[in-house]
Amino acid sequence: MSFHDNDLVPYGSSPSDREAIVKRFRSALDETGLKVPMVTTNLFFRPVFKEGAFTANDPAVRRMAVVKTLDAIDLGVELGAQVFVMWGGREGVEADAAKDVRGALDRYAEAVDLCCSYVRDRGYDLRFALEPKPNEPRGDILLPTVGHMLAFISELEWPEMVGLNPEFAHETMSGLSFSHAVAQTLWHDKLFHIDLNAQRIGKFDQDFRFGSEGIRDAFYTVKVLEDAEWDGMRHFDAHAYRTEDEDGVWDFARGCMRTYLILREKVRRFHDDPDIAEALRTARRSEITEPTSPAGSGSDAIARLRSQAATFDEAALATIGYGHERLDQLVTELLLGVR
Amino acid sequence: MSFHDNDLVPYGSSPSDREAIVKRFRSALDETGLKVPMVTTNLFFRPVFKEGAFTANDPAVRRMAVVKTLDAIDLGVELGAQVFVMWGGREGVEADAAKDVRGALDRYAEAVDLCCSYVRDRGYDLRFALEPKPNEPRGDILLPTVGHMLAFISELEWPEMVGLNPEFAHETMSGLSFSHAVAQTLWHDKLFHIDLNAQRIGKFDQDFRFGSEGIRDAFYTVKVLEDAEWDGMRHFDAHAYRTEDEDGVWDFARGCMRTYLILREKVRRFHDDPDIAEALRTARRSEITEPTSPAGSGSDAIARLRSQAATFDEAALATIGYGHERLDQLVTELLLGVR
Amino acid sequence: MSFHDNDLVPYGSSPSDREAIVKRFRSALDETGLKVPMVTTNLFFRPVFKEGAFTANDPAVRRMAVVKTLDAIDLGVELGAQVFVMWGGREGVEADAAKDVRGALDRYAEAVDLCCSYVRDRGYDLRFALEPKPNEPRGDILLPTVGHMLAFISELEWPEMVGLNPEFAHETMSGLSFSHAVAQTLWHDKLFHIDLNAQRIGKFDQDFRFGSEGIRDAFYTVKVLEDAEWDGMRHFDAHAYRTEDEDGVWDFARGCMRTYLILREKVRRFHDDPDIAEALRTARRSEITEPTSPAGSGSDAIARLRSQAATFDEAALATIGYGHERLDQLVTELLLGVR
Amino acid sequence: MSFHDNDLVPYGSSPSDREAIVKRFRSALDETGLKVPMVTTNLFFRPVFKEGAFTANDPAVRRMAVVKTLDAIDLGVELGAQVFVMWGGREGVEADAAKDVRGALDRYAEAVDLCCSYVRDRGYDLRFALEPKPNEPRGDILLPTVGHMLAFISELEWPEMVGLNPEFAHETMSGLSFSHAVAQTLWHDKLFHIDLNAQRIGKFDQDFRFGSEGIRDAFYTVKVLEDAEWDGMRHFDAHAYRTEDEDGVWDFARGCMRTYLILREKVRRFHDDPDIAEALRTARRSEITEPTSPAGSGSDAIARLRSQAATFDEAALATIGYGHERLDQLVTELLLGVR
Repeated sequence: MSFHDNDLVPYGSSPSDREAIVKRFRSALDETGLKVPMVTTNLFFRPVFKEGAFTANDPAVRRMAVVKTLDAIDLGVELGAQVFVMWGGREGVEADAAKDVRGALDRYAEAVDLCCSYVRDRGYDLRFALEPKPNEPRGDILLPTVGHMLAFISELEWPEMVGLNPEFAHETMSGLSFSHAVAQTLWHDKLFHIDLNAQRIGKFDQDFRFGSEGIRDAFYTVKVLEDAEWDGMRHFDAHAYRTEDEDGVWDFARGCMRTYLILREKVRRFHDDPDIAEALRTARRSEITEPTSPAGSGSDAIARLRSQAATFDEAALATIGYGHERLDQLVTELLLGVR
Repeated sequence: MSFHDNDLVPYGSSPSDREAIVKRFRSALDETGLKVPMVTTNLFFRPVFKEGAFTANDPAVRRMAVVKTLDAIDLGVELGAQVFVMWGGREGVEADAAKDVRGALDRYAEAVDLCCSYVRDRGYDLRFALEPKPNEPRGDILLPTVGHMLAFISELEWPEMVGLNPEFAHETMSGLSFSHAVAQTLWHDKLFHIDLNAQRIGKFDQDFRFGSEGIRDAFYTVKVLEDAEWDGMRHFDAHAYRTEDEDGVWDFARGCMRTYLILREKVRRFHDDPDIAEALRTARRSEITEPTSPAGSGSDAIARLRSQAATFDEAALATIGYGHERLDQLVTELLLGVR
Repeated sequence: MSFHDNDLVPYGSSPSDREAIVKRFRSALDETGLKVPMVTTNLFFRPVFKEGAFTANDPAVRRMAVVKTLDAIDLGVELGAQVFVMWGGREGVEADAAKDVRGALDRYAEAVDLCCSYVRDRGYDLRFALEPKPNEPRGDILLPTVGHMLAFISELEWPEMVGLNPEFAHETMSGLSFSHAVAQTLWHDKLFHIDLNAQRIGKFDQDFRFGSEGIRDAFYTVKVLEDAEWDGMRHFDAHAYRTEDEDGVWDFARGCMRTYLILREKVRRFHDDPDIAEALRTARRSEITEPTSPAGSGSDAIARLRSQAATFDEAALATIGYGHERLDQLVTELLLGVR
Repeated sequence: MSFHDNDLVPYGSSPSDREAIVKRFRSALDETGLKVPMVTTNLFFRPVFKEGAFTANDPAVRRMAVVKTLDAIDLGVELGAQVFVMWGGREGVEADAAKDVRGALDRYAEAVDLCCSYVRDRGYDLRFALEPKPNEPRGDILLPTVGHMLAFISELEWPEMVGLNPEFAHETMSGLSFSHAVAQTLWHDKLFHIDLNAQRIGKFDQDFRFGSEGIRDAFYTVKVLEDAEWDGMRHFDAHAYRTEDEDGVWDFARGCMRTYLILREKVRRFHDDPDIAEALRTARRSEITEPTSPAGSGSDAIARLRSQAATFDEAALATIGYGHERLDQLVTELLLGVR
């Protein structure tokens, strides 16, 4: 299980209260065998963070935010967490004149660097996973997509300590392909955590049961994770509909997991299906791994490319059919369980 | 002026035809004093690129795309261009099964590296500006936003040669703030070119006259460019409405420029307006430049932050008003010309 | 001022408490001269309505919703309201299988008919204004746009008693033109109330200060209201940013009104500007009032149209320029206060 | 098969050419047994319609548009069509100042009335199906959704002759539920035709293969059609991906049909599945058909509702769980073919 600091320890608890709560919680973990692989801190609920946390204009608020995060890091490490998620829900603006975006990015980087420094000093075995979101609760949130966050990480002091926690709903809100976002994150070696749920494009943050919307996107997300043999936890960050009683909440949790497993099985069948294999050959999917310039980028290699290109029959290349309709229909039928 | 290779030299022209066209074009440039600061290549129109160009599954198509780009680089440099824009309109997919996204990113990087290598070998004074777009003509285009492209650049062999050409319409299609995108691009020192136009969120690529939609976003875009004293060309990549005759097309071009200049004047007045200055103080905008941890990230510095945070009065901090409504209304009235 | 029933009288108040509250409130109205032109009922907050109110599957819940509405009607009429707004925030679904949409529309119509019947029986001078919204809090809300609601009204028992309360934010969430929605509502003679605010397309329900986003849409909304000499109240349904203290809330309220008045003045200048007048002639705007078939729809009239059409010079008609770029730029400059 | 007038008869054909083409086409129909159940007219391609067709500001253009439509009606009836689709792709605006929306709606209604009058005069057995679309090629198209069109029809002279042709892609572009749109159209008895395809929210008009995106929406669309026993043609208005050769186009066509049939079979299984039946009972779906006020809307009936409501236990009603998570998961698993 995972939690925000104040989900476990109420804000403003005394040290002794904190100790008692953590002790009781550890016992529960020990008894049940549950683990805490990830924790995070809530920097968005309390009014003090209304103008931002790591990027608040007021330095006092920024300092509070950093210290609250350090405390949450201590708490997480104490309970065995190896990933610390950072979602900057208040790091944004509605009245654009009020925020110097470049200055705010400086402060954002400073805050993450401070946390990394702290973890290094303490010798913690902990990595950070930043979670992008385009809007809500702010009109525009800074670093709104997986891409913006990945770029940001490249400017940090210890980029190797910081990766992403992409969320299906957040990336989908902007109409972007979540499975592509996960693939790019893997390409950068930055998939440190994942939040699976469901969402329709261009709506409020819905956090629906995994697979309940966007079955095709869910399948390709599972496929990219499984094909990459990604060893991280499949984490669901979703909410039951408001129509449910307690049983419904359990059905909801079960449904997230069931759908993941069903889709994982379909990924296996995708790879075993001879018609799909043939369609992939028609689409020439595996040829993407062949270097465009096998001889490298030197001037000889380029001269060779040029002379080779002069021999291509463009008209013939243009008439080749890639069979995407057939391939996509085969996948649709695999998803629909009729093959 | 700027152009795609085949806007000037028709596809398949013989070397002598090419030479004649270029000669005539150079004369026109010389006579009129017009310059060619930027060129690009068209890798999206011809059917051979229907499945992709730099990231086509077929290596022959990829090779053609790279060689066509090298030729366009030669053409651009010959005409004085110092920026080469790359818009990968066909680098994407509708049938996700057909594309290995991580493999495609490898090939995308390889293609850009090949172009960089070529420019270095030839000793050209040319930089590359990549232009992201989320979709259209493909269902999903790879590297769909400014963020995804910035992250991609950090993995290239010569990242210093490659920056961005953010486009107002493309970023706005996804509902993301274009002025934030430009600010982050500047923060990474990667604003190599810009495409200004207008667009409504969640629609087809409209390429409207600059400022005709999203006046507020247009203003903040001008503001971030002017405040940063960005020395690049203000480039408009837009189309006149289909309702126009030739006069209308000139009105369209004039309108783009007029609106930029009007907004630039408003930026100047923004900085001179005493009420806005006071509202910015209330919003504490300039305090974002103050380090959160003035003493750095060492353990002493962090200990100091922690003891300082213990003294903060959270309730008092939470009740502070930042005056964003007043500030935003002042900007609205500045835009509306009533202050 | 306007309110939900439970904003004034807490849910579950005893009759004597209700009476005391209403008495105190009436005194306040009398002292201040404030009026209550519109009231509504809250059918979305309490958990009992989690599955719907007028369209809940459970008949008991539907009955509670109708009776709560009748009580709110009594309260509104007692305080002088002449418009009763109905926003069916819970009338929708996430799990589509759970809702028979056609059955739900039957019940929706029944509930509105019951309210109309009640108002007629009591002889109240009250009309209903239905408020569409596409989503949030439900995944999909029934009758999601101005259009769907207008169509629904045509099926009611007393359609003349029921009109619309279009909201800028709600229609804009779907990317639809709010000023077109208002114009169509006026065309149907159904603009019984209006909710003005601001919103970006494809986001959560933002309810921003009027004019703070979408200045151009705000201008055309004001223009259609003023050109139609609509005599209804200009009602703002918006919220101050969370960054504000009490002063900021007043600035927010003032800003809504100021921007409306500024835009109204710009509408006046639009009509007085000779360049705009000329551009409107070029666009041939006023010719839309000329009947396409001046002689009507009989067979003679149609024969005349046909013989007339045979004389048209299509090529000449096709080359006419309508000057929309110039006209739109003139409006942009009017909005920017430079003409 | 169905077509635009100029798909069959090139624009500007002489009467004798037209006759020859139609004769040849009729022979082909007779030989193959193909039918032409629906035709339409192209009022969007030729530049003469760039400012609108039925709602062009220029009366001459409007007259051309109406006459072109009458000719297409003759052509369609001659070939056996019983439905005439009208898609007003150019009836819209980018520069809002140029268009008097209320005046344009007058002209739109006049044009449809003229067509109806003509069909009545000729005694044709033909109905009209209007097709809404929110945008593209215009910035905003008039009557942008199923709802706006349904409302418009209620103002026509012969509303019984005019219904809708809802399109999956067009309604989905605005983020609205297509299955709800179809259900509401059926509720108004106005489903005269349908265009099935696939689309992602907030993108260009994609017209993908039916079921390739939005499987869940596709399923509920099939379900509402089948449950209503709608007797119209299942018409696919879609395009193959640009990656295809001729075989791919046939695969595309086959895929549309296959997916419809697969989903229709799943609808049958939905109704036969005992677990789903039980979940529907938990959701109380069928209770929506019970009148809220069984005794009608008179004052006695309302008095009875009130006294009944006084007996309800709100707290108990509020705690009921409707089991939507379980129901929705059962549907997900039905779709995935694992039940």
